[in-house]
Amino acid sequence: MVGIIIIAHGDLAQALHHAVEHVLGKQRQMEFINVAADSDPVALQHQLDRCIDQCDGGNGVILCADMFGGTPCNVALGRLDPEKIDILSGISLPSLITIASERSQIADPTALARKGAASGRRYLCMASTMLKPGA
Amino acid sequence: MVGIIIIAHGDLAQALHHAVEHVLGKQRQMEFINVAADSDPVALQHQLDRCIDQCDGGNGVILCADMFGGTPCNVALGRLDPEKIDILSGISLPSLITIASERSQIADPTALARKGAASGRRYLCMASTMLKPGA
Repeated sequence: MVGIIIIAHGDLAQALHHAVEHVLGKQRQMEFINVAADSDPVALQHQLDRCIDQCDGGNGVILCADMFGGTPCNVALGRLDPEKIDILSGISLPSLITIASERSQIADPTALARKGAASGRRYLCMASTMLKPGA
Repeated sequence: MVGIIIIAHGDLAQALHHAVEHVLGKQRQMEFINVAADSDPVALQHQLDRCIDQCDGGNGVILCADMFGGTPCNVALGRLDPEKIDILSGISLPSLITIASERSQIADPTALARKGAASGRRYLCMASTMLKPGA
């Protein structure tokens, strides 16, 4: 099973982790890293390495970051490994729920990240469009 | 200026609000509603109505929910108003940052929500694709 690590600004990683478990129940091989404005980048890299060790059960890991260009994503990008670690940035709750719920069937981090991205795009939707008569 | 209300499971709304202010600085006409597992739906509707009153400066409001089908989104959908309130569900930090940063130029909630959705889809991306040589 592919591991999941959420890394984001402030308490966002923890809040997303809790929301995923609220919807799907307790998760194994899933961790979060909260990044404060004054977090030390070297300490963050060490923390991320420990999380990767904890979450990788042999099928690799997806690092889920809140936003491309932010410190959390930059720290994650340093661990990109085509063999076993991919990074998905700009995550939402629907993208995370798809990744967490389909990782028992999809053993490749990049294929799983692609599913998560597709789900996040599909379920980012406006009520005025979805609920329009005849839509 | 269009108002913004984030409504989501657990502490997710607050964490997203803080992350937006971390990136863009202090925001006016922007509130959050954390929805606990045992939150009373009627009390949530009243809380949402108070937030709408606070955030609507005359150009309407966007209600930003974490996931279509969840309680926070369902509460928001009850306030859909084609004249002044739209709902965007499946939000991410990039979508919120676009909405918050462009609302001084775009005075229509639906047009602004559409921009936020487009931004969220564009910036939900995989490192393995973005950083591929020749991509």
